[in-house]
Amino acid sequence: VSTRRGRRPGDPAVTRRAIVEAARKVFAEHGYERATIRAIAAAAGVDPALVHHHFGAKQELFVAAHDLPISPATIEAVLAGDEGTLGERLVRAYLTAAISERTPLEALVRSAVSNPTARDMLREFFENEILHRFADRVARPDARMRMALAGSQLIGLFMMRRILELDPIRTADVEDLVAAVAPTLDRYLGADEAA
Amino acid sequence: VSTRRGRRPGDPAVTRRAIVEAARKVFAEHGYERATIRAIAAAAGVDPALVHHHFGAKQELFVAAHDLPISPATIEAVLAGDEGTLGERLVRAYLTAAISERTPLEALVRSAVSNPTARDMLREFFENEILHRFADRVARPDARMRMALAGSQLIGLFMMRRILELDPIRTADVEDLVAAVAPTLDRYLGADEAA
Repeated sequence: VSTRRGRRPGDPAVTRRAIVEAARKVFAEHGYERATIRAIAAAAGVDPALVHHHFGAKQELFVAAHDLPISPATIEAVLAGDEGTLGERLVRAYLTAAISERTPLEALVRSAVSNPTARDMLREFFENEILHRFADRVARPDARMRMALAGSQLIGLFMMRRILELDPIRTADVEDLVAAVAPTLDRYLGADEAA
Repeated sequence: VSTRRGRRPGDPAVTRRAIVEAARKVFAEHGYERATIRAIAAAAGVDPALVHHHFGAKQELFVAAHDLPISPATIEAVLAGDEGTLGERLVRAYLTAAISERTPLEALVRSAVSNPTARDMLREFFENEILHRFADRVARPDARMRMALAGSQLIGLFMMRRILELDPIRTADVEDLVAAVAPTLDRYLGADEAA
């Protein structure tokens, strides 16, 4: 029951859900880099233009399909703000999304740890979309390392709070963690200090 | 073929191996806190005094059984050194043991992520033996949080380098990582700065 353009009938929520499910499957099978909007559209039985219409570029579809707490758009917004509060804004955005709420990030981290394909997919996304974006903006030779170090602190916080559930990080107020960790991110991401 | 004191015949290496295997099993079954030297000795078919003779206290047996890169003894030694180089010495000891060599820490992290029993065992050990030790020494109300934050940075580095295998952290020189991360640990563990 598809029209000539390959659209499914019914409401947009059904279409979005079909695209998201197809995207998860195609990303898991082919990895982030090799997955294409065309292949995802085919798996969902819709026209590629419809995927673009609902989700924009591949990076945003990946974020939506995995409900990631930090998207390239989040990073852009954080980088565009006042530099003096960069670390604070980054860790707060991350903690609020990734740690305060139960999100599928836990499932993604668990599968990345146990499944090399999921790991490669997540790593490709992080390398291509997050490190790259930061490196382009700050234009320093060590920009990728700086962003990767900031990422290491954030994923470590997630491991302690949500995977290992270690006190007192497990039960700490988000704002106390923001205050503790923001200077670390500022130092890693800072424009004029040595990392 | 055991004597009245329950000792196995043969060389000490065989005895140590039997104790280590029994310890892994008992720790995995009962967790760190509830596992006893007595139960481990019984599972190994040896006298408890022999376990103490070969491994010392329960904490050291846990470290030996899981080949952990950082033992309470390592922490003691690092804490006892010059305070101005604390972060540097801690991250170097950790990286050298945990990241530069293939160690069973990877297996332990993987099982802690996928298996709640292994997670609880690891967490109990870290809370009881590592956080506690540091908290006793620095005598600050937030000492456990400071050590936990330092731990979050170290486990995040391990995740990036060995589990997610993210460049450029995967391929970085250990001394470059030491230089980048030591000031973070110094700030978390420092005696007079706000964490």
